[in-house]
Amino acid sequence: MNKVIILNKRPHGKPALSDFEITNEEIPLAKDGAILLKTVYVSVDPYLRGRMNDAKPYVPPFELDKPIQSGIIAEVIESKQENFKKGDFVSGNLEWKEYQTSEGKGLHKVNQNEAKLSSYLGILGMTGLTAYLGLTEIGLPKKGETLIVSGAGGAVGTVAGQVGKLLGCKVVGITGSDEKVDLLTSKFNFDHAVNYKTTPNLKEAVKSACPKGVDIYFDNVGGEISDAVLANINKYARLPVCGAISLYNKTEVPIGPRLQPIILTKSVTIRGFIIGDLAEKFPAATKQLTAWLKADKLTFSETIVEGFDNIPQAFIALFEGKNKGKMIVKI
Amino acid sequence: MNKVIILNKRPHGKPALSDFEITNEEIPLAKDGAILLKTVYVSVDPYLRGRMNDAKPYVPPFELDKPIQSGIIAEVIESKQENFKKGDFVSGNLEWKEYQTSEGKGLHKVNQNEAKLSSYLGILGMTGLTAYLGLTEIGLPKKGETLIVSGAGGAVGTVAGQVGKLLGCKVVGITGSDEKVDLLTSKFNFDHAVNYKTTPNLKEAVKSACPKGVDIYFDNVGGEISDAVLANINKYARLPVCGAISLYNKTEVPIGPRLQPIILTKSVTIRGFIIGDLAEKFPAATKQLTAWLKADKLTFSETIVEGFDNIPQAFIALFEGKNKGKMIVKI
Repeated sequence: MNKVIILNKRPHGKPALSDFEITNEEIPLAKDGAILLKTVYVSVDPYLRGRMNDAKPYVPPFELDKPIQSGIIAEVIESKQENFKKGDFVSGNLEWKEYQTSEGKGLHKVNQNEAKLSSYLGILGMTGLTAYLGLTEIGLPKKGETLIVSGAGGAVGTVAGQVGKLLGCKVVGITGSDEKVDLLTSKFNFDHAVNYKTTPNLKEAVKSACPKGVDIYFDNVGGEISDAVLANINKYARLPVCGAISLYNKTEVPIGPRLQPIILTKSVTIRGFIIGDLAEKFPAATKQLTAWLKADKLTFSETIVEGFDNIPQAFIALFEGKNKGKMIVKI
Repeated sequence: MNKVIILNKRPHGKPALSDFEITNEEIPLAKDGAILLKTVYVSVDPYLRGRMNDAKPYVPPFELDKPIQSGIIAEVIESKQENFKKGDFVSGNLEWKEYQTSEGKGLHKVNQNEAKLSSYLGILGMTGLTAYLGLTEIGLPKKGETLIVSGAGGAVGTVAGQVGKLLGCKVVGITGSDEKVDLLTSKFNFDHAVNYKTTPNLKEAVKSACPKGVDIYFDNVGGEISDAVLANINKYARLPVCGAISLYNKTEVPIGPRLQPIILTKSVTIRGFIIGDLAEKFPAATKQLTAWLKADKLTFSETIVEGFDNIPQAFIALFEGKNKGKMIVKI
């Protein structure tokens, strides 16, 4: 039998295990022109929360009682088409199923001799592209500028900070545990990191970490953390808005200081993006990320959870900050 | 004697007449290399409010007990330098004085045979440039898109809307009186206008005026009006933030719905600007505005107040929405 995880009901606030259901179906047969895939790694990402609402998010909502989708690495175990052969590994946006068939549309072959398979969900996948292109295309970093990254200990944050350093910025991270603060400065090359949960005055902590002010704010979280950064923003600052994890689970409209006065007086540019809109830049970005990775100039962290049944729990753990770097479920 | 208006004390909230003082000094003498100017027209603008605070605004604050400055048209009544001669009219950022001397730095000659003198403070001055360049450089209008302008009945708003129409957009204005609603659609070529003071549900009114959603929001006001527009914003919308008149007089940090979720889910770009940063584009922009003006494709409104002593009152009236188009004091 083939296990499938469906969206059982739409989460109210923070997702709960009961919002998901594990069901069974028969393992499908690959028809002519199709391949049969066995799931190997499943990526769980904060943005999936948006797709669990019925509102129009930036990508269409998941349907109730239908399988959830995310980035997945799968092995081709049977092929009835010429583009893929048995034993290939592919990456793509697939369903939370142990086995599924595909005609190959939107799938890319990945090479496990070049890099760890799971890295194609992380630093060489959407995560790395999001960090690299959000920073370079919207953050427009210049040597000597100060970059601050919120959600710095997460998958995108750890890459964004390292890329900022490689491009000559001073890099400060905001994260939610002392352990992650240590990792950011020791492993990920950040100049400084702040634990927002224990800092008595985040605005002052940002000020002291960024004495020249903030030129680029790579924002993964929104909310009060962003207020503290904006209080230290420089003229002509650029703010790629990559995520708003602090706001995803809010059941009422979140309220905060209005941004227009700062946007106006500091001539700030704020731009939200989803990585799919920058697809034409993927090949060059992947090339750069691969080169840095091979030259040991980039490193990455994964939190690997084992077992298909644990996908929902791994997803929920993202909102508890339990991941260091990329959260991946190994099947 | 020479009347001078100084900043007597920093306004708390809405400016009051007692924040200003009219003093007297002797009419200065033009030394060698200088010119003596007689003030003809004085521009009063909402952004001056920011300079009356002691905080760092986008331009340096005015000093207490010193004359206030704004855009002024003056006549050269004596010249001891070769660039200007008696009878010339000049435009520049000058002090609120009946007479003043200058060495000519930052002054531009204006030609009263080409256009009304006061228009060099408005449609052919900073007002017109702000509307034109804010819209074209940040709003990036495309034919068939929907542009909405807040503060639409003000100096910049009336021009921004007309330029949007000339560039092929559908244009909707938000303003604060039925009289201005009529003017926007009859005189200024807006497709539709909404009186935010009498509309029971502004969000619904914007929705009904913009059935295809809002692609560009030229924001002069901030606050709840902007909330209503953002609720109707389209994917990839551009928001030039030109002013925040609804927030200038707030004595506490204004609070409202957080913008990050909309910025993120709609891939919106919000950018604050001050027109001085776009100076390299002034010649081309002035050429285009002059051409449209001569071809009767652009029109403008002025609210002219008479008398030097009435400058503070004219400035205060901006925050009561008493101006239609550009507010100018004729001396």
